Amino acid sequence: MLVVMKTNASEQEIRAVCERIENLGLKAHPIPGETRTAIGITGNKSAVDLAFLDSMPGVVECIPVSKPYKLVGREVKPEDSVLVIPTPSGEVRIGGPHFGVIAGPCAVENREQFFAAAERVRAGGARLMRGGAYKPRTSPYSFQGLGLEGLKIMAEAREAYGVGIVTEAVDNESLDLVEEYADVIQIGARNMQNFSLLKRAGRARKPVLLKRGMAATLDEFLMAAEYVMSEGNYNVALCERGVRTFSDHTRNTLDLSVVPAVHGVSHLPILVDPSHGTGRRTKVRPLSRAAVAVGADGLLIEVHHDPDHALSDGFQSISPEEFEVLMGEVRQIAAVLSRSVN
Amino acid sequence: MLVVMKTNASEQEIRAVCERIENLGLKAHPIPGETRTAIGITGNKSAVDLAFLDSMPGVVECIPVSKPYKLVGREVKPEDSVLVIPTPSGEVRIGGPHFGVIAGPCAVENREQFFAAAERVRAGGARLMRGGAYKPRTSPYSFQGLGLEGLKIMAEAREAYGVGIVTEAVDNESLDLVEEYADVIQIGARNMQNFSLLKRAGRARKPVLLKRGMAATLDEFLMAAEYVMSEGNYNVALCERGVRTFSDHTRNTLDLSVVPAVHGVSHLPILVDPSHGTGRRTKVRPLSRAAVAVGADGLLIEVHHDPDHALSDGFQSISPEEFEVLMGEVRQIAAVLSRSVN
Amino acid sequence: MLVVMKTNASEQEIRAVCERIENLGLKAHPIPGETRTAIGITGNKSAVDLAFLDSMPGVVECIPVSKPYKLVGREVKPEDSVLVIPTPSGEVRIGGPHFGVIAGPCAVENREQFFAAAERVRAGGARLMRGGAYKPRTSPYSFQGLGLEGLKIMAEAREAYGVGIVTEAVDNESLDLVEEYADVIQIGARNMQNFSLLKRAGRARKPVLLKRGMAATLDEFLMAAEYVMSEGNYNVALCERGVRTFSDHTRNTLDLSVVPAVHGVSHLPILVDPSHGTGRRTKVRPLSRAAVAVGADGLLIEVHHDPDHALSDGFQSISPEEFEVLMGEVRQIAAVLSRSVN
Amino acid sequence: MLVVMKTNASEQEIRAVCERIENLGLKAHPIPGETRTAIGITGNKSAVDLAFLDSMPGVVECIPVSKPYKLVGREVKPEDSVLVIPTPSGEVRIGGPHFGVIAGPCAVENREQFFAAAERVRAGGARLMRGGAYKPRTSPYSFQGLGLEGLKIMAEAREAYGVGIVTEAVDNESLDLVEEYADVIQIGARNMQNFSLLKRAGRARKPVLLKRGMAATLDEFLMAAEYVMSEGNYNVALCERGVRTFSDHTRNTLDLSVVPAVHGVSHLPILVDPSHGTGRRTKVRPLSRAAVAVGADGLLIEVHHDPDHALSDGFQSISPEEFEVLMGEVRQIAAVLSRSVN
Repeated sequence: MLVVMKTNASEQEIRAVCERIENLGLKAHPIPGETRTAIGITGNKSAVDLAFLDSMPGVVECIPVSKPYKLVGREVKPEDSVLVIPTPSGEVRIGGPHFGVIAGPCAVENREQFFAAAERVRAGGARLMRGGAYKPRTSPYSFQGLGLEGLKIMAEAREAYGVGIVTEAVDNESLDLVEEYADVIQIGARNMQNFSLLKRAGRARKPVLLKRGMAATLDEFLMAAEYVMSEGNYNVALCERGVRTFSDHTRNTLDLSVVPAVHGVSHLPILVDPSHGTGRRTKVRPLSRAAVAVGADGLLIEVHHDPDHALSDGFQSISPEEFEVLMGEVRQIAAVLSRSVN
Repeated sequence: MLVVMKTNASEQEIRAVCERIENLGLKAHPIPGETRTAIGITGNKSAVDLAFLDSMPGVVECIPVSKPYKLVGREVKPEDSVLVIPTPSGEVRIGGPHFGVIAGPCAVENREQFFAAAERVRAGGARLMRGGAYKPRTSPYSFQGLGLEGLKIMAEAREAYGVGIVTEAVDNESLDLVEEYADVIQIGARNMQNFSLLKRAGRARKPVLLKRGMAATLDEFLMAAEYVMSEGNYNVALCERGVRTFSDHTRNTLDLSVVPAVHGVSHLPILVDPSHGTGRRTKVRPLSRAAVAVGADGLLIEVHHDPDHALSDGFQSISPEEFEVLMGEVRQIAAVLSRSVN
Repeated sequence: MLVVMKTNASEQEIRAVCERIENLGLKAHPIPGETRTAIGITGNKSAVDLAFLDSMPGVVECIPVSKPYKLVGREVKPEDSVLVIPTPSGEVRIGGPHFGVIAGPCAVENREQFFAAAERVRAGGARLMRGGAYKPRTSPYSFQGLGLEGLKIMAEAREAYGVGIVTEAVDNESLDLVEEYADVIQIGARNMQNFSLLKRAGRARKPVLLKRGMAATLDEFLMAAEYVMSEGNYNVALCERGVRTFSDHTRNTLDLSVVPAVHGVSHLPILVDPSHGTGRRTKVRPLSRAAVAVGADGLLIEVHHDPDHALSDGFQSISPEEFEVLMGEVRQIAAVLSRSVN
Repeated sequence: MLVVMKTNASEQEIRAVCERIENLGLKAHPIPGETRTAIGITGNKSAVDLAFLDSMPGVVECIPVSKPYKLVGREVKPEDSVLVIPTPSGEVRIGGPHFGVIAGPCAVENREQFFAAAERVRAGGARLMRGGAYKPRTSPYSFQGLGLEGLKIMAEAREAYGVGIVTEAVDNESLDLVEEYADVIQIGARNMQNFSLLKRAGRARKPVLLKRGMAATLDEFLMAAEYVMSEGNYNVALCERGVRTFSDHTRNTLDLSVVPAVHGVSHLPILVDPSHGTGRRTKVRPLSRAAVAVGADGLLIEVHHDPDHALSDGFQSISPEEFEVLMGEVRQIAAVLSRSVN
């Protein structure tokens, strides 16, 4: 059920509707839009008749929602959501007219490596950096990341270069730390249906970047975002990173059609990760261009100052030189779609 | 690296090799086999030359292991592993000559429902029961399980009917409780690469049943088991539950060929879950028969005393009547493969 | 539209209904069942009102058919169809209570090889032989089969060993020859949607064995059979041979759940080919057992008297010795399902 | 084996090498490049030692080819191939710096419809038209195309509007007619491994547009083109049209990464068909833009003057108005990649 408020509904009216809902044992989610506020309702509504809500002051109508997702849907919020990320060099926006680029190494290896990357990434024009401190690796014997030490290195680079930090949390403990040290909490593909972690991210006060699971349908992907939002964190962006298919010329099959599909039913921004999406260095640039052209809201790219000696995923990292060339192409294609690049 | 000990190596010799390994900053995993013990070594071995180990008393040879997995591999332990589950009615074994059946409802709904199921499952001849207290659901608004209350109901049924309890843990908190109340800790498909949870399961003192992820390759599946074993818990069984493909006549595509594939490279037992594997009540019996015939070590089946009114997954649960017919077929086919059914 | 005739409808009444249908510019397909005949109607019916047919003598009712398939559906013919194959040693039946085994080498290489195989296959208890004269190969530079010469060798073996011959046609020209020399016309997976070839097979007077395409859904598979039947050839059997998925431990993923799925909606028999379905010699026996247990109507197995020197697909062919062991297991499991093995 | 000729090798020298090869019972394929000619050799070379060829006049070296494909590979011909299509309004080129657009309805329905489409497509700036006369349909009861009548309508439109005609052949008979009436012979996805048809296309004197099969790997796709080229027709272009995956928000999953993958190993041009690739009208424009940006050599787009009343595939056809908007975007993005649009 969705309660749509009048354009000129007052704060007080909105609060009154929310309180009424909460008094019924349900949860109210006021979602401010550009012109009006809508209030999503979650919880077990079966025993309650909510029809009376549309007679409350400031309410336009009550819409029963048939799709499994509620808070992520365009029905709740017709305008595009914009992820707002405060960084030392000012706010970065992703979504709507704003195209965002997040670049950096797969893993933080040490201070020198990350600072070198930060300098190059910043020079290339990106203001958001990726870097893994907690690495979910297929083998327990592979490099698992520097953990807290990695977070601290990234936080230092944050101040030194004015970049916002995007990094993955893999469990509740690491999420606590990521929330403390970083600017955006990334939930990885392998944890897309780790519902316990999604709920914890929903209680965090930092933006969340949620990657699509390797075999997730569109509905499952959106429902994972719904888990985060249902806990009260509405600052969510999605990220396509390739799905698993029979096709063997790339590590995964990048499903760019999910971008217009998400935009069709959801207000959330969606980025594309061509590095994991292809797993091949030579495919990163063409697929990055394609992601901009298909209408994605941003890119998540692995850039390593020395790809051949990266501790992880070097085969899919591009060099800072190639990154600069790519940024030029990204800006030109983004312009065709009337978007500015952050 | 794998250290193979002589048939008549003494406890002391084995312990000496282990200590030597640990002194080098590595981890030793002595794995007793029927005729001899092998010692797996994990940790960062790059800086250490281990060749000298083969000159220690009781050692036959040191084998470099090329496959990504070590502890799960047949190279470490040529004989089939057998999962041993103590229940109030005596030990149940799964693996080798022992075929095990785990049956019960998708979710524990209340005491009456679970006890009714227990009576029927026990009558059908199964001594292990499944039942979910923590349900990973695609939607945050679906029934998420009774949690601790569900565990307590199952523990009661355990004593009342003499059945062993198999139930899923979804995070560290629920794993603590599952370890306390149940007999087998199940890790679900969606958490197959929740490495933090796998490591926690590896430190538990109860057997672990690990389900294959929806898009997991054989290697990834085995490496997830390796995560559990690398923490010291060697009491692990695998479970095939269908993979995601284009095929739309069943909810998932049950990949029975993974059973002989696992048996080829690993000593671990592997069960099959035809309920999730097909998602269709009418397909459970034929695919259960096929699972026995292909050589699986057991079945995990959803049985609900009133499938049409189940709170979750009723469409894939069979009735107690059909379960009894199925058990008859299972016994006959198991006999063809010289296996006894628990 | 389906016209269901009374149990005691006379030949004349059936003929009268068919003529009436054909006079309307449509095609009538009388399909005799055990207790009654049903008449399927194909062609463009949009302009014609057929309701009047149910007032004709001998007609019970007219059923509008909603599913895309008609002639293959159980609605048209509730009883299982049985493929009847005349061989020099008498009729072989596949379907219903009859389980059929078709065995032999991937390709006919020369007279000696095929005769050796025939002797061993016959000794193992099979009365139908497979063997390719026209081989669809991924590369134009691979061995493409002996063509007409291969057909002649198989026809000779037919007489010498009393076996029925099942072999693939790849275009209209080869189909003419296969129809002349062999007993069953096989349409391969790659040609499952070669509609021109399917129609030609529908005009042949020999039974057709239609293999599932590598990415065919159940509906597409059945519609391909519908193409054959819509041309008047109702002697059709299906064959599952593995579908293409991300799973890499077998060459294809054998989808055994399609067997009960086909049996649910269609009266056609369905066999399983575990040789192509797995592409691994060591998986053929377990998956063959599983195919019997799941309820398949037969097996199509590659047996080569010298697998390691086969000109094609040797890696998935089993030896005559293993075939004999397998036949023993097949008979035992078939007995559990109350089926006799041909 | 590949014989690389000197830059200044004479016609006579090239012919001499070819004759020598043919005298050995093999087939020679001289492939002229921009700077030099290479000669591919196909046939059974096992019994022949070809090393002596490098001592013949004009020969630089003989390169053993390890990849399964030969004639399609970049090793044979390092420069991009360009498909040259003569039309009444002059040659159209696809490949290298030339980006080609082929647009038109799924099926030719009648003269009025196709002429209306031709006028709008031409106005939008395309000089090549698609239109089906032989339609491979999943159901035998669906509209199968106008056949020869459809070809004649397209041939008329060809003259009236100066467009080149691209249309599908589904068997040898229709290929004869398509070769006579149209400018480009299309081989559809369902026939990608109809090797008999591929060979016939290889003997045609018109360019061939080969669509990727729904579950074809890159190697299988290229080997299908190899079948065409091995018969002597080197005027071949590929077309990605979506592959089959679990993903259900589009009809197929458009695999744009295959474009740089093909360009990496093959000299053949590759187009993209976003209409079949997504099966959704609303996804055609974004994915068309992405195809240009990823580096495809052209687009194959369904445009219908009245999509809602199309006899087939209306749900994936765009209107002429949207096509014009799209062409504007295509030109802008093509310019970023320094390509001109035909």
